[in-house]
Amino acid sequence: MYGLIGKMTAVAGQRDALISILLDGVSGMPGCLSYVVAQDPADADAIWITEVWDSQASHKASLSLPSVQAAIAQGKPLIAGFDQHIETAPVGGHGIAGPG
Amino acid sequence: MYGLIGKMTAVAGQRDALISILLDGVSGMPGCLSYVVAQDPADADAIWITEVWDSQASHKASLSLPSVQAAIAQGKPLIAGFDQHIETAPVGGHGIAGPG
Repeated sequence: MYGLIGKMTAVAGQRDALISILLDGVSGMPGCLSYVVAQDPADADAIWITEVWDSQASHKASLSLPSVQAAIAQGKPLIAGFDQHIETAPVGGHGIAGPG
Repeated sequence: MYGLIGKMTAVAGQRDALISILLDGVSGMPGCLSYVVAQDPADADAIWITEVWDSQASHKASLSLPSVQAAIAQGKPLIAGFDQHIETAPVGGHGIAGPG
């Protein structure tokens, strides 16, 4: 499996709007086993996204999906920066859904 | 919801053993919506754990479960250090299972 842990910073005051854009696009992504969008309680503009995919190829392919392309276009103006981008290799756990 | 993103370092050569201990204890934890154990591909001793709970109280209560206490006791000698401990407030996503 392929995993990502990322932190991004929204333009001030736009975190909720950015989160709803991110959540709009998360269902129906082939190979997506987990995609969690979270607020950072210590930073009013920060968002954490943790992802699990059945493969890196599935993740890469998802970036071309119309729904994801639309979310990227819509979300880009609300993003102030990308702070962390960590790749992982998930081994297992609870709540790893079947492929999306 | 309450989330955690943590990184720990296993004693050299003990990552696989530590991961299997961690995975043994993850099912049946009331309020656990997601618990993913992953290797860090860039560090042979590092483990990432990403968690989503229905509440911080559920997470705290889980630490007293016999299965979790046993995993902690078994795993402790194999842990070299805790590197990151990030609290989050998950908003939503895919693969957030029903309470464990």
